Amino acid sequence: MSETPLRIGIAGIGTVGAALVNILAGKADLLAARCGRAIVLSGVCARDRSRDRGCDLSAVEWFDDPVALAASEGIDVFVELMGGDGDPAHAAVKAALHAGKHVVTANKALLARHGVELARIAEEKGLILNFEAAVAGGIPVIKTMREALTSNTISRVFGILNGTCNYMLTRMEMEGLSYEACLKDAQALGYAEADPTFDVEGFDTAHKLAILTSLAFGSEISADEIYVEGISNITTEDIEAAGELGYRIKLLGVAQKTASGIEQRVHPTMVPVAAPIAQISGVTNAVAIEADLVGQLVLSGPGAGGEATASAVSGDICDIAKSRPGHQQAPALGVPAAALAPYVQARMRAHEGGYFIRLNVYDQAGVFASIASRMAEEGISLESIVQRKRDGKTRSPADQQTIILITHETTEQAIRNALERIETDGHLAAHAQMFRIEK
Amino acid sequence: MSETPLRIGIAGIGTVGAALVNILAGKADLLAARCGRAIVLSGVCARDRSRDRGCDLSAVEWFDDPVALAASEGIDVFVELMGGDGDPAHAAVKAALHAGKHVVTANKALLARHGVELARIAEEKGLILNFEAAVAGGIPVIKTMREALTSNTISRVFGILNGTCNYMLTRMEMEGLSYEACLKDAQALGYAEADPTFDVEGFDTAHKLAILTSLAFGSEISADEIYVEGISNITTEDIEAAGELGYRIKLLGVAQKTASGIEQRVHPTMVPVAAPIAQISGVTNAVAIEADLVGQLVLSGPGAGGEATASAVSGDICDIAKSRPGHQQAPALGVPAAALAPYVQARMRAHEGGYFIRLNVYDQAGVFASIASRMAEEGISLESIVQRKRDGKTRSPADQQTIILITHETTEQAIRNALERIETDGHLAAHAQMFRIEK
Repeated sequence: MSETPLRIGIAGIGTVGAALVNILAGKADLLAARCGRAIVLSGVCARDRSRDRGCDLSAVEWFDDPVALAASEGIDVFVELMGGDGDPAHAAVKAALHAGKHVVTANKALLARHGVELARIAEEKGLILNFEAAVAGGIPVIKTMREALTSNTISRVFGILNGTCNYMLTRMEMEGLSYEACLKDAQALGYAEADPTFDVEGFDTAHKLAILTSLAFGSEISADEIYVEGISNITTEDIEAAGELGYRIKLLGVAQKTASGIEQRVHPTMVPVAAPIAQISGVTNAVAIEADLVGQLVLSGPGAGGEATASAVSGDICDIAKSRPGHQQAPALGVPAAALAPYVQARMRAHEGGYFIRLNVYDQAGVFASIASRMAEEGISLESIVQRKRDGKTRSPADQQTIILITHETTEQAIRNALERIETDGHLAAHAQMFRIEK
Repeated sequence: MSETPLRIGIAGIGTVGAALVNILAGKADLLAARCGRAIVLSGVCARDRSRDRGCDLSAVEWFDDPVALAASEGIDVFVELMGGDGDPAHAAVKAALHAGKHVVTANKALLARHGVELARIAEEKGLILNFEAAVAGGIPVIKTMREALTSNTISRVFGILNGTCNYMLTRMEMEGLSYEACLKDAQALGYAEADPTFDVEGFDTAHKLAILTSLAFGSEISADEIYVEGISNITTEDIEAAGELGYRIKLLGVAQKTASGIEQRVHPTMVPVAAPIAQISGVTNAVAIEADLVGQLVLSGPGAGGEATASAVSGDICDIAKSRPGHQQAPALGVPAAALAPYVQARMRAHEGGYFIRLNVYDQAGVFASIASRMAEEGISLESIVQRKRDGKTRSPADQQTIILITHETTEQAIRNALERIETDGHLAAHAQMFRIEK
């Protein structure tokens, strides 16, 4: 082992940062054997020096300014774990690259907004920009898409990218709990934030999806053009109805190539119970990749958590340790930044697929015929129909019925038109619930 | 793109080789963009020049001797797709490394037998030895273990590594078919060889497992010290009994660290129907990796097939294209060959786990009491017991009963002792069926 050590600077010592510090210290010998050189922690930056973070930082140089750490002569790799799509994370990562440091980041928001710019700078400087931990925590989905599938043409990538939502949906299904009760539990257990909006409304999933989309299709990152719907609207009735018809509801991020461009969408999705993605329960994440050569790959594992995320960060660091100075391994986004295609958005209304629709209607003669006519007017054909008074479990008043429709493949536009007319017809006792089906 | 092209030589143009040739030709622009340099096919070696392989080899230099191709000045990377653990594959790969060529191989048998030797030569020469396609076809399990999980300490790796067996077990379960009927179908569909021994008796799984074991535990490869049991002994009664008690039978390769060494075993295994590995049906493969930081990762996808396997081979080639000459990316087996620990085998009789036992007994008074006593004598406690006359589906004669026992955790030695005594007692109408449970 004749090589000089690789010197690491970490900005942001929260749960992930502390786990990383402990890995670098506790597994120093293992890492040196596997990487062919020592990896040493040289500098850290965090807000409060006095806080006990469960890791030993006494021998490490402390920086108050992440930009100063990023540009410091004492480090070779800058690890950004501060989060946020603006400064100081953005400024610090740019400073690191401009100072000739490789960068590892777990910051999905930063990449979703500035990923192409940062990839371009890294390339110009011949530096490595790694971000495995930014999507799906400990699951090596970035490495798989960027390195393992190099010769594949990807057609679709989709996944469960937010553990909070999947945890809540799993409990709603398994225990028949309400959304509100699950949220309270998730908050008590630390799976959801006090303000859960970012998770439950799908924005976290959207950030991650934007990164996967770029890698899948060689396109520029576009996090602002994602159709996003969260899970806060889902009721136990929806989950029961799904189960009765052989489906399970998952919050998916889906990116796929269509004739009119790239579809990026995040929404509660009906997946057949036998599908691999339907088996993913609790806080576990999973990503399915469909490509011409490899068919379908599914990767599942922990999407969050200090150690699992730090595992991905340290994998990225080790890849840098194994590379040689000045030699970039692969473009950060799979192809050189200049070769990324402009993002062409496929409009959501052009989306084609099956739909699962649950209607609470007044129990009157002719209601179903009227609904069926509206669907037919839009050229929507139905795969299955369930109409009945709900049993004892029902929460519907006695003068109401539930109708569930599963459509054959149709367009979002047709479904929205039909539902709008059905609402106008005045038969509905509540807003229609509409779920896209993904197979 | 100022770099010189990377020149490839392929020995063995069967299904995988032909798919690879077509990828290199059909996706040349994509690969060049992603790798930063062109990848060109410069030489091939195969037995019969005249055979139509569905790929264009007219512009490529043809070699009759794989060793000559391996050492040829016209190539930078030698791709070995001939198979077999002896010559010419072994000689050709060695010749390539000695001549300073990087090597990509899909040859599990070669690696299981000579992997450490080849890794050592590659290291000495500063060359890359890649073999993603040797285990689980298109699933990037080698890359995940070798690169993504660098900082993890792996405790167990297990998986469905043979598509033929999984296809047969799936059909036996879904359609109630016999082993023999499934085998015939699998042969007709090309999923099983005319002589299926290598697949159905578990040897193919064992070769792949030996490679995963080395990567998981940093130990030398030892394919000869694997406990191997195939699926040819499994009956529809076993599968029905498993289903009734919430289990599914899968042929698993399992490697785990125990106090007395490394356990490597291939056998039909009872897995709870809700376990991720139980969901893998048909020819699909899956690998589960358990490690201290990342918890459990599960990767699933196609374990065979020309294009899926060629996808892995070309991913390996692209990794070489992105590296720079003379710079090895990572040791082939995760740590330098000299740092691999000697393989210390944990004896199979020391294996600890739960067991699923199916006994066909004569319907006589005291039989169950006698069996229960024998289990108790060995200190085996029972989690569940099912004893009954089988219904109309049964194949047992009228004077027989089936007893199914599920044990709590015990040792292989205890189970074997108990079963031996039970057989000696003379109550069994047929040999006991014993399955290990994996959770």
